[in-house]
Amino acid sequence: MKITVGVSNRHVHLNYDDYKILFGDIPLTKRNDLNQPGMYACNETVIIEGSKRSINNVRVLGPLRSYTQVEVSKTDAYTLGVDPPVRNSGELDGAGLIKIIGPCGEIEKEAAIIAARHIHVDKKIRKEHNLEGIEIVSVKILGEKGGIIDNVHLKDSDEAYFELHLDTDDANAFLLKQNDEVEIIK
Amino acid sequence: MKITVGVSNRHVHLNYDDYKILFGDIPLTKRNDLNQPGMYACNETVIIEGSKRSINNVRVLGPLRSYTQVEVSKTDAYTLGVDPPVRNSGELDGAGLIKIIGPCGEIEKEAAIIAARHIHVDKKIRKEHNLEGIEIVSVKILGEKGGIIDNVHLKDSDEAYFELHLDTDDANAFLLKQNDEVEIIK
Repeated sequence: MKITVGVSNRHVHLNYDDYKILFGDIPLTKRNDLNQPGMYACNETVIIEGSKRSINNVRVLGPLRSYTQVEVSKTDAYTLGVDPPVRNSGELDGAGLIKIIGPCGEIEKEAAIIAARHIHVDKKIRKEHNLEGIEIVSVKILGEKGGIIDNVHLKDSDEAYFELHLDTDDANAFLLKQNDEVEIIK
Repeated sequence: MKITVGVSNRHVHLNYDDYKILFGDIPLTKRNDLNQPGMYACNETVIIEGSKRSINNVRVLGPLRSYTQVEVSKTDAYTLGVDPPVRNSGELDGAGLIKIIGPCGEIEKEAAIIAARHIHVDKKIRKEHNLEGIEIVSVKILGEKGGIIDNVHLKDSDEAYFELHLDTDDANAFLLKQNDEVEIIK
Protein backbone atom coordinates (compact mmCIF):
# COMPACT_ATOMS: atom_id res chain seq x y z
CA MET A 1 0.00 0.00 0.00
CA LYS A 2 1.14 3.56 -0.75
CA ILE A 3 2.37 6.01 1.89
CA THR A 4 3.96 9.46 1.71
CA VAL A 5 7.40 10.30 3.08
CA GLY A 6 8.20 12.86 5.74
CA VAL A 7 11.90 13.73 5.88
CA SER A 8 13.15 14.53 9.40
CA ASN A 9 16.18 16.76 9.55
CA ARG A 10 18.15 16.82 12.83
CA HIS A 11 16.02 18.23 15.66
CA VAL A 12 15.61 18.42 19.41
CA HIS A 13 12.81 17.57 21.85
CA LEU A 14 13.13 19.15 25.31
CA ASN A 15 11.68 18.52 28.74
CA TYR A 16 10.54 21.46 30.87
CA ASP A 17 13.62 21.63 33.10
CA ASP A 18 16.10 21.51 30.21
CA TYR A 19 14.05 24.06 28.27
CA LYS A 20 14.28 26.50 31.19
CA ILE A 21 18.07 26.06 31.40
CA LEU A 22 18.47 26.66 27.66
CA PHE A 23 15.87 29.38 27.09
CA GLY A 24 15.00 30.85 30.51
CA ASP A 25 11.48 31.93 31.30
CA ILE A 26 10.32 32.93 27.81
CA PRO A 27 7.72 30.55 26.39
CA LEU A 28 8.36 28.20 23.44
CA THR A 29 6.94 29.78 20.26
CA LYS A 30 5.40 28.00 17.27
CA ARG A 31 6.87 28.56 13.81
CA ASN A 32 4.73 26.09 11.87
CA ASP A 33 2.56 23.02 12.42
CA LEU A 34 3.88 19.61 11.44
CA ASN A 35 1.77 16.89 9.82
CA GLN A 36 1.40 14.94 13.08
CA PRO A 37 -1.57 16.47 14.99
CA GLY A 38 -0.41 18.73 17.85
CA MET A 39 3.26 18.71 16.80
CA TYR A 40 5.00 21.87 15.62
CA ALA A 41 8.38 23.32 14.72
CA CYS A 42 9.42 26.18 17.00
CA ASN A 43 11.16 29.45 16.24
CA GLU A 44 13.70 28.39 18.86
CA THR A 45 16.93 26.68 17.78
CA VAL A 46 19.93 25.32 19.67
CA ILE A 47 23.54 24.44 18.97
CA ILE A 48 24.41 20.76 19.41
CA GLU A 49 28.01 19.78 20.10
CA GLY A 50 29.90 16.51 20.18
CA SER A 51 33.56 15.67 20.80
CA LYS A 52 34.60 16.91 17.34
CA ARG A 53 32.37 19.73 16.12
CA SER A 54 29.10 21.57 16.65
CA ILE A 55 26.07 22.09 14.39
CA ASN A 56 24.12 25.38 14.59
CA ASN A 57 20.47 26.18 14.02
CA VAL A 58 19.05 22.86 15.16
CA ARG A 59 15.29 23.22 15.39
CA VAL A 60 13.39 22.62 18.63
CA LEU A 61 10.10 20.74 18.10
CA GLY A 62 7.10 21.36 20.32
CA PRO A 63 5.34 20.74 22.54
CA LEU A 64 7.71 20.04 25.45
CA ARG A 65 7.99 16.34 26.37
CA SER A 66 8.84 14.31 29.46
CA TYR A 67 12.33 13.63 28.02
CA THR A 68 15.06 15.54 26.19
CA GLN A 69 16.12 13.88 22.93
CA VAL A 70 18.42 14.91 20.08
CA GLU A 71 17.67 13.17 16.78
CA VAL A 72 20.54 13.14 14.31
CA SER A 73 21.56 11.18 11.22
CA LYS A 74 24.66 8.96 11.08
CA THR A 75 26.22 11.64 8.85
CA ASP A 76 25.58 14.23 11.59
CA ALA A 77 27.00 11.80 14.16
CA TYR A 78 30.31 11.59 12.27
CA THR A 79 30.38 15.39 11.90
CA LEU A 80 29.70 15.97 15.59
CA GLY A 81 31.75 13.12 17.03
CA VAL A 82 28.88 11.42 18.86
CA ASP A 83 27.87 7.75 18.88
CA PRO A 84 24.07 7.54 18.88
CA PRO A 85 22.28 4.19 18.80
CA VAL A 86 19.24 3.54 16.57
CA ARG A 87 16.22 3.97 18.83
CA ASN A 88 12.50 4.53 18.89
CA SER A 89 11.60 7.94 20.28
CA GLY A 90 11.84 8.09 24.08
CA GLU A 91 13.96 4.92 24.43
CA LEU A 92 17.07 6.71 25.61
CA ASP A 93 18.90 3.88 27.36
CA GLY A 94 22.44 4.00 25.94
CA ALA A 95 21.82 7.23 24.00
CA GLY A 96 24.90 9.20 22.90
CA LEU A 97 26.41 11.93 25.06
CA ILE A 98 25.80 15.36 23.52
CA LYS A 99 25.91 18.99 24.57
CA ILE A 100 22.94 21.26 23.82
CA ILE A 101 23.60 25.01 23.89
CA GLY A 102 20.83 27.61 24.10
CA PRO A 103 20.83 31.40 24.53
CA CYS A 104 20.57 31.13 28.34
CA GLY A 105 22.61 28.06 29.18
CA GLU A 106 23.80 24.62 28.18
CA ILE A 107 23.28 21.00 29.19
CA GLU A 108 25.21 17.83 28.46
CA LYS A 109 23.44 14.48 28.64
CA GLU A 110 22.95 11.07 27.03
CA ALA A 111 20.22 12.18 24.62
CA ALA A 112 21.48 11.59 21.07
CA ILE A 113 19.79 8.91 18.95
CA ILE A 114 19.36 7.97 15.31
CA ALA A 115 15.58 7.67 15.05
CA ALA A 116 14.46 4.23 13.91
CA ARG A 117 12.58 4.36 10.60
CA HIS A 118 8.91 4.62 11.55
CA ILE A 119 5.37 5.06 10.28
CA HIS A 120 2.83 7.06 12.27
CA VAL A 121 -0.45 5.20 12.74
CA ASP A 122 -3.52 5.25 14.97
CA LYS A 123 -6.32 2.71 15.49
CA LYS A 124 -8.37 4.05 12.59
CA ILE A 125 -5.41 3.97 10.19
CA ARG A 126 -4.46 0.43 11.27
CA LYS A 127 -8.02 -0.70 10.57
CA GLU A 128 -8.34 1.14 7.24
CA HIS A 129 -5.01 -0.17 5.93
CA ASN A 130 -5.22 -3.69 7.35
CA LEU A 131 -2.23 -3.09 9.64
CA GLU A 132 -3.71 -4.44 12.87
CA GLY A 133 -1.28 -6.44 14.99
CA ILE A 134 1.72 -5.49 12.86
CA GLU A 135 4.78 -3.88 14.49
CA ILE A 136 7.44 -3.83 11.77
CA VAL A 137 7.21 -3.55 7.98
CA SER A 138 9.52 -3.03 5.02
CA VAL A 139 9.12 -0.27 2.44
CA LYS A 140 9.85 -0.46 -1.29
CA ILE A 141 11.32 2.63 -2.94
CA LEU A 142 11.45 3.09 -6.72
CA GLY A 143 13.82 5.25 -8.73
CA GLU A 144 17.44 5.40 -9.86
CA LYS A 145 18.65 4.70 -6.33
CA GLY A 146 15.71 2.54 -5.31
CA GLY A 147 15.53 -0.49 -3.06
CA ILE A 148 13.90 -1.71 0.12
CA ILE A 149 14.28 -0.48 3.70
CA ASP A 150 13.66 -2.96 6.52
CA ASN A 151 12.88 -2.50 10.23
CA VAL A 152 10.30 0.23 9.75
CA HIS A 153 8.39 0.45 13.05
CA LEU A 154 4.69 1.25 13.28
CA LYS A 155 4.34 3.98 15.91
CA ASP A 156 0.92 4.41 17.52
CA SER A 157 -0.66 7.59 18.80
CA ASP A 158 -4.24 8.60 19.61
CA GLU A 159 -4.53 10.56 16.40
CA ALA A 160 -1.90 10.19 13.68
CA TYR A 161 -1.18 11.44 10.18
CA PHE A 162 -0.28 8.36 8.11
CA GLU A 163 3.30 9.07 7.08
CA LEU A 164 6.72 7.36 6.85
CA HIS A 165 9.38 9.28 8.75
CA LEU A 166 12.93 8.93 7.45
CA ASP A 167 16.08 10.74 8.48
CA THR A 168 18.10 12.66 5.90
CA ASP A 169 20.54 9.76 5.34
CA ASP A 170 17.74 7.42 4.30
CA ALA A 171 15.98 10.12 2.27
CA ASN A 172 19.13 11.23 0.46
CA ALA A 173 20.43 7.69 -0.16
CA PHE A 174 17.15 6.92 -2.00
CA LEU A 175 16.76 10.44 -3.50
CA LEU A 176 13.47 10.87 -1.62
CA LYS A 177 11.90 14.24 -0.90
CA GLN A 178 9.09 15.33 1.44
CA ASN A 179 5.70 13.95 0.27
CA ASP A 180 7.18 11.44 -2.19
CA GLU A 181 5.17 8.24 -2.41
CA VAL A 182 6.57 4.81 -1.51
CA GLU A 183 5.08 1.35 -0.93
CA ILE A 184 4.65 -0.57 2.31
CA ILE A 185 5.54 -4.29 2.08
CA LYS A 186 4.34 -6.32 5.03
CA MET B 1 27.53 -14.10 -2.60
CA LYS B 2 29.47 -11.96 -0.12
CA ILE B 3 31.30 -8.75 -1.04
CA THR B 4 33.04 -6.05 1.00
CA VAL B 5 32.04 -2.41 1.00
CA GLY B 6 34.22 0.52 0.02
CA VAL B 7 32.78 3.85 1.16
CA SER B 8 33.53 6.74 -1.22
CA ASN B 9 33.56 10.16 0.36
CA ARG B 10 33.25 13.15 -1.99
CA HIS B 11 36.26 13.36 -4.34
CA VAL B 12 37.53 14.78 -7.60
CA HIS B 13 39.08 13.29 -10.73
CA LEU B 14 40.94 15.74 -12.95
CA ASN B 15 42.11 15.86 -16.55
CA TYR B 16 45.56 17.20 -17.36
CA ASP B 17 44.44 20.67 -18.50
CA ASP B 18 42.23 21.28 -15.46
CA TYR B 19 44.94 19.96 -13.15
CA LYS B 20 47.41 22.50 -14.55
CA ILE B 21 44.95 25.37 -14.03
CA LEU B 22 44.29 24.30 -10.42
CA PHE B 23 47.79 23.23 -9.35
CA GLY B 24 50.24 24.70 -11.87
CA ASP B 25 53.31 22.79 -12.92
CA ILE B 26 53.92 20.81 -9.72
CA PRO B 27 53.23 17.09 -10.15
CA LEU B 28 50.33 15.23 -8.48
CA THR B 29 51.61 13.42 -5.37
CA LYS B 30 50.39 10.12 -3.94
CA ARG B 31 49.14 9.98 -0.35
CA ASN B 32 47.99 6.36 -0.28
CA ASP B 33 46.99 3.57 -2.60
CA LEU B 34 43.30 2.65 -2.95
CA ASN B 35 42.04 -0.91 -3.24
CA GLN B 36 41.50 -0.63 -7.00
CA PRO B 37 44.86 -1.43 -8.68
CA GLY B 38 46.63 1.71 -9.90
CA MET B 39 44.26 4.12 -8.14
CA TYR B 40 45.43 6.37 -5.31
CA ALA B 41 44.40 9.25 -3.08
CA CYS B 42 46.58 12.32 -3.55
CA ASN B 43 47.94 14.80 -1.03
CA GLU B 44 46.28 17.47 -3.17
CA THR B 45 42.82 18.75 -2.21
CA VAL B 46 40.49 21.33 -3.73
CA ILE B 47 37.54 23.45 -2.65
CA ILE B 48 34.28 22.69 -4.46
CA GLU B 49 31.60 25.38 -4.64
CA GLY B 50 27.97 25.43 -5.69
CA SER B 51 25.36 28.20 -5.73
CA LYS B 52 24.91 28.04 -1.94
CA ARG B 53 28.11 27.01 -0.18
CA SER B 54 31.55 25.51 -0.60
CA ILE B 55 33.18 22.38 0.87
CA ASN B 56 36.92 22.40 1.67
CA ASN B 57 39.51 19.64 1.65
CA VAL B 58 37.99 17.58 -1.14
CA ARG B 59 40.51 14.88 -2.06
CA VAL B 60 41.91 14.57 -5.59
CA LEU B 61 42.20 10.94 -6.75
CA GLY B 62 44.94 9.85 -9.12
CA PRO B 63 46.02 9.17 -11.73
CA LEU B 64 44.78 11.99 -13.98
CA ARG B 65 41.97 10.97 -16.35
CA SER B 66 40.63 12.09 -19.71
CA TYR B 67 37.74 13.89 -17.94
CA THR B 68 37.24 16.05 -14.86
CA GLN B 69 34.54 14.72 -12.51
CA VAL B 70 33.34 15.73 -9.05
CA GLU B 71 31.63 12.90 -7.14
CA VAL B 72 29.34 14.04 -4.32
CA SER B 73 26.49 12.61 -2.27
CA LYS B 74 22.94 13.99 -2.40
CA THR B 75 23.59 15.42 1.09
CA ASP B 76 26.64 17.26 -0.30
CA ALA B 77 24.54 18.43 -3.25
CA TYR B 78 22.00 20.10 -0.91
CA THR B 79 24.85 21.66 1.10
CA LEU B 80 26.57 23.01 -2.01
CA GLY B 81 23.51 24.00 -4.02
CA VAL B 82 24.28 21.82 -7.04
CA ASP B 83 21.99 19.42 -8.92
CA PRO B 84 24.02 16.35 -9.92
CA PRO B 85 22.44 13.42 -11.75
CA VAL B 86 23.15 9.78 -10.84
CA ARG B 87 25.77 8.60 -13.32
CA ASN B 88 28.37 5.96 -14.00
CA SER B 89 31.87 7.40 -13.93
CA GLY B 90 32.76 9.32 -17.09
CA GLU B 91 29.15 9.70 -18.27
CA LEU B 92 29.03 13.46 -17.76
CA ASP B 93 26.18 14.41 -20.10
CA GLY B 94 23.89 16.61 -17.98
CA ALA B 95 26.30 16.70 -15.02
CA GLY B 96 25.80 19.48 -12.46
CA LEU B 97 27.58 22.83 -12.78
CA ILE B 98 30.24 23.18 -10.08
CA LYS B 99 33.26 25.36 -9.36
CA ILE B 100 36.58 23.71 -8.42
CA ILE B 101 39.13 25.91 -6.66
CA GLY B 102 42.81 24.98 -6.34
CA PRO B 103 45.87 26.85 -5.05
CA CYS B 104 46.74 28.22 -8.53
CA GLY B 105 43.36 28.82 -10.13
CA GLU B 106 39.75 27.78 -10.50
CA ILE B 107 37.47 26.21 -13.09
CA GLU B 108 33.69 25.99 -13.40
CA LYS B 109 32.15 23.20 -15.45
CA GLU B 110 29.39 20.60 -15.68
CA ALA B 111 31.25 17.90 -13.76
CA ALA B 112 29.21 17.06 -10.64
CA ILE B 113 27.60 13.63 -10.39
CA ILE B 114 26.25 11.27 -7.76
CA ALA B 115 28.13 8.08 -8.56
CA ALA B 116 25.81 5.18 -9.35
CA ARG B 117 26.20 2.30 -6.89
CA HIS B 118 28.76 -0.02 -8.44
CA ILE B 119 30.84 -3.15 -8.01
CA HIS B 120 34.34 -3.37 -9.46
CA VAL B 121 34.89 -6.54 -11.46
CA ASP B 122 37.23 -7.94 -14.09
CA LYS B 123 36.99 -11.01 -16.34
CA LYS B 124 38.53 -13.29 -13.72
CA ILE B 125 36.18 -12.06 -10.96
CA ARG B 126 33.14 -12.43 -13.24
CA LYS B 127 34.13 -16.01 -13.99
CA GLU B 128 34.97 -16.93 -10.37
CA HIS B 129 31.70 -15.48 -9.01
CA ASN B 130 29.42 -16.58 -11.83
CA LEU B 131 28.71 -12.96 -12.85
CA GLU B 132 29.29 -13.31 -16.60
CA GLY B 133 26.82 -11.36 -18.74
CA ILE B 134 25.33 -9.52 -15.75
CA GLU B 135 25.22 -5.74 -15.75
CA ILE B 136 23.07 -4.81 -12.73
CA VAL B 137 22.50 -6.53 -9.38
CA SER B 138 20.87 -5.80 -6.04
CA VAL B 139 22.64 -6.01 -2.69
CA LYS B 140 21.17 -7.17 0.63
CA ILE B 141 22.35 -5.39 3.77
CA LEU B 142 21.75 -6.75 7.27
CA GLY B 143 21.57 -4.80 10.53
CA GLU B 144 19.33 -2.42 12.45
CA LYS B 145 18.93 -0.24 9.37
CA GLY B 146 19.18 -3.01 6.83
CA GLY B 147 17.45 -3.52 3.50
CA ILE B 148 18.20 -3.92 -0.19
CA ILE B 149 19.79 -1.52 -2.64
CA ASP B 150 18.90 -1.87 -6.32
CA ASN B 151 20.58 -0.67 -9.51
CA VAL B 152 24.09 -1.67 -8.50
CA HIS B 153 26.16 -1.61 -11.71
CA LEU B 154 28.99 -4.03 -12.44
CA LYS B 155 31.95 -1.95 -13.59
CA ASP B 156 34.62 -3.72 -15.61
CA SER B 157 38.31 -2.98 -15.69
CA ASP B 158 41.36 -4.98 -16.80
CA GLU B 159 42.31 -5.75 -13.23
CA ALA B 160 39.84 -5.06 -10.42
CA TYR B 161 39.59 -5.48 -6.67
CA PHE B 162 36.15 -7.05 -6.02
CA GLU B 163 34.40 -4.39 -3.95
CA LEU B 164 31.04 -2.58 -3.72
CA HIS B 165 31.45 1.19 -3.88
CA LEU B 166 28.81 3.22 -2.06
CA ASP B 167 28.66 6.94 -1.41
CA THR B 168 28.39 8.25 2.15
CA ASP B 169 24.58 8.61 1.94
CA ASP B 170 24.11 4.93 1.15
CA ALA B 171 26.76 3.86 3.68
CA ASN B 172 25.38 6.02 6.49
CA ALA B 173 21.72 5.19 5.78
CA PHE B 174 22.58 1.49 6.25
CA LEU B 175 25.19 2.08 9.00
CA LEU B 176 27.87 0.53 6.77
CA LYS B 177 31.58 1.11 7.24
CA GLN B 178 34.60 0.42 5.05
CA ASN B 179 35.21 -3.35 4.66
CA ASP B 180 31.80 -4.39 6.03
CA GLU B 181 30.41 -7.47 4.33
CA VAL B 182 27.15 -7.50 2.36
CA GLU B 183 25.44 -9.93 -0.01
CA ILE B 184 24.95 -9.71 -3.77
CA ILE B 185 21.48 -10.76 -4.98
CA LYS B 186 21.31 -11.32 -8.73
